[in-house]
Amino acid sequence: MAEGMSEPASEVTASEVTDPARFLRDHGPAALEWAASYLERVGSLPVLAQIEPGELTSKLPAAAPEQGESFDAVLRDLDEILMPGITHWQHPRYFAYFPSATSGPAILADMLAVTINTVSFLWRSSPAATELEAVVLAWVAQLMGLPAGWHGQIEAGGSLATMTAAIAAREATGRNLLVCSAETHSSAAKAARMLGMELRTVPVDGDGALSVDALGSLGDAAIVVATVGTTSRGAVDPVPAIADACEAAGAWLHIDAAYAGAAMVCPEMRWAFAGVERADSLLVNAHKWMLTPIDCSLLWTSRPDAFLNAFSMVPEYLRTPAFEDQWSPHEYGPALGRGFRALKLWAVLRCYGRDGLRQHVRAGLEMAATFENWVAADAGWELVSPRRFGLVCFRHVGDDNFNEALLEAVNASGEAFLSHTVINGRYALRLATGGLLTTPADIDHTWKLLRGEAAALSF
Amino acid sequence: MAEGMSEPASEVTASEVTDPARFLRDHGPAALEWAASYLERVGSLPVLAQIEPGELTSKLPAAAPEQGESFDAVLRDLDEILMPGITHWQHPRYFAYFPSATSGPAILADMLAVTINTVSFLWRSSPAATELEAVVLAWVAQLMGLPAGWHGQIEAGGSLATMTAAIAAREATGRNLLVCSAETHSSAAKAARMLGMELRTVPVDGDGALSVDALGSLGDAAIVVATVGTTSRGAVDPVPAIADACEAAGAWLHIDAAYAGAAMVCPEMRWAFAGVERADSLLVNAHKWMLTPIDCSLLWTSRPDAFLNAFSMVPEYLRTPAFEDQWSPHEYGPALGRGFRALKLWAVLRCYGRDGLRQHVRAGLEMAATFENWVAADAGWELVSPRRFGLVCFRHVGDDNFNEALLEAVNASGEAFLSHTVINGRYALRLATGGLLTTPADIDHTWKLLRGEAAALSF
Repeated sequence: MAEGMSEPASEVTASEVTDPARFLRDHGPAALEWAASYLERVGSLPVLAQIEPGELTSKLPAAAPEQGESFDAVLRDLDEILMPGITHWQHPRYFAYFPSATSGPAILADMLAVTINTVSFLWRSSPAATELEAVVLAWVAQLMGLPAGWHGQIEAGGSLATMTAAIAAREATGRNLLVCSAETHSSAAKAARMLGMELRTVPVDGDGALSVDALGSLGDAAIVVATVGTTSRGAVDPVPAIADACEAAGAWLHIDAAYAGAAMVCPEMRWAFAGVERADSLLVNAHKWMLTPIDCSLLWTSRPDAFLNAFSMVPEYLRTPAFEDQWSPHEYGPALGRGFRALKLWAVLRCYGRDGLRQHVRAGLEMAATFENWVAADAGWELVSPRRFGLVCFRHVGDDNFNEALLEAVNASGEAFLSHTVINGRYALRLATGGLLTTPADIDHTWKLLRGEAAALSF
Repeated sequence: MAEGMSEPASEVTASEVTDPARFLRDHGPAALEWAASYLERVGSLPVLAQIEPGELTSKLPAAAPEQGESFDAVLRDLDEILMPGITHWQHPRYFAYFPSATSGPAILADMLAVTINTVSFLWRSSPAATELEAVVLAWVAQLMGLPAGWHGQIEAGGSLATMTAAIAAREATGRNLLVCSAETHSSAAKAARMLGMELRTVPVDGDGALSVDALGSLGDAAIVVATVGTTSRGAVDPVPAIADACEAAGAWLHIDAAYAGAAMVCPEMRWAFAGVERADSLLVNAHKWMLTPIDCSLLWTSRPDAFLNAFSMVPEYLRTPAFEDQWSPHEYGPALGRGFRALKLWAVLRCYGRDGLRQHVRAGLEMAATFENWVAADAGWELVSPRRFGLVCFRHVGDDNFNEALLEAVNASGEAFLSHTVINGRYALRLATGGLLTTPADIDHTWKLLRGEAAALSF
């Protein structure tokens, strides 16, 4: 195939690519149809890419072409070369890690954002992006029942958002210790390591929640990272008690609700988020369960002045008149230039509405509950941990090796994709709902697939 | 207008938004035409947004709609509410800060990336994105004449990329000092502050380049950030001498060529980059002068093992078979989840070709040279600093206040947008070429505009 690619390709005239409006009119319809068709047929493709490491690289040429080619060639190679190497996160039976659902409104709005391609670091460099970001973060905060008046911003990812909070906390407290649980997402420990902070890991209870009894003194703590919905098993740390301890010790409380936070759109789920209103900072990844493609990590803070103290640095070439200064996004985080990420989230909120987002979350919760019930009712299977949100951790009777082989067999089938964890020393399969296209029939299909593969392995 | 927006909007049926293929077919053509039409008419819009801070916020409702609305309403409000608040980075007379050019191939390819919305942290979570990223970074390295075999990755922004290098350097050297020049981009000093590193700022010579004589001992230095093409005036630090000093002292050499690096695609410009082949890490923002929209910061390292040492942290839920491990993108940087950013860069390289990218850079260089000549030849104006790459720093005869008023008058006209800096204590206007749509006629138009506004102010 590499040879095929080096054949004289359909070269383009310079005018075609340098006239972007013409380019979009000439090639946009085919690209759009590719996208629509992809979302129609993705369910018929193998979820987990069925290639070997290095296989795709070997099919690509060693250099970019000297002369420009037609976008037709890009679409052709996307189909012929890249597609076999894509793990399909939008497949209705993608259940691994956590979901990252795209959606129609987000796809189109992001295309417009990339067309406008405004860069927001100062208010004047992008007033619309700057103000819309604040507005949609306020909309989401209200939809989630969070306190009014928090400062919201979009960061490039959850790991970066937690690191951002840790930097603000260190600056605000003058302390250098990050505290989290043994099951906090690795991004917290990674932030401590990257920032040169000390790390204290607090043990968890049998359900994976931070043990408050083991929290110890927070007198040296800059920040405690508490999680609602841990990555391994969706555990919920006891936020109210942690907030009490932080408040008493003057430590910063950061809530990592990267995955589960979307469930706050449903009032009936807010019990799981008790105490988050006391956070100094809160992270929810809209690019997980909120139909907004990556990157879109929502980071709120009740202490914007602490962010300003930590991140504001204004060289001469970024000075603007004082009445614009209060809006400068670059003074509130690690990044300078930032894309128009708010536009896709705005389109999702407009086109789904508050009701549509609730329906999407509820559908994921219900499908996970259904699956949990099937596992619980079958003597051949067991729940390794109680279901939390859309996440079910389970295993087949048998040892860890059996379950690891089971997972590999299921994933190799291409019919579904799940991931794994280890809970209290035991290997567990993880099934996380929340995809754009997942229906109850896909849960049923996957349950049958799991039982079939387990039977084949047991035989 | 806020009231207008709360009128009963065109509500959609649930099926319309929950069927993404139908949504794209129904609304994609209008979105695509909006994008094409925008790029056709952007030159007729005021470059700098003509609204006041807070004005846009006041026109948006206080909450997301309860029921979903049609995408038509999103497009309508984009036109009526957001457009007046957009500073048009794609306007042919956008000359402020540095360019951030989009392009037809990038717009369409990114739409496909957002549709697929795969998340690359492990090889298996996104083999195609993982491998394509390595391949296109190798293509660009080759196109720029960089050494073969460097490890390349895409980071979310230049500030983050420099911070990433500083973390790797600190880990590799066991030292805690960041050294840069007084005119290094503020992201270097910000990285030191965020990471709790010490900072030493080395004076610059009259041209804004780091004074090697003032470099001092690097025995305590973790990293020296040297710049090819500073933000203020495009200065080029003496990289070969700095590389000698770093090598002798065991310090990490990071090259910030965020803006100017694109010029390496032209062999005749490589003289300015002498010594960058000795870097431990090198940053070029493809989202500045390479027709690839934000975010697309290219970060290469000749020491991938040092990155691995600094960033690898693999919890159980991210473990994969050993033969996949060598590819895990999350082990080479601060982020875990990352979008399919390589696809847009691949499309740009394919559709422009190596020749097309060279032509784009050369056009920017030539237009800046033309402008420089006009300034130099007119007794009413002066160059404050020699032209570097596509950047001209200049001023009108008169004091700083006059030039500040001149800049504000030009920008308020909506006809062009320039930014400013201060060089050796003197206020200077900055004109940076490199936009997608800029032609020599726009340079001519802007020169006439500047002279006209200066004459009006002088009167």
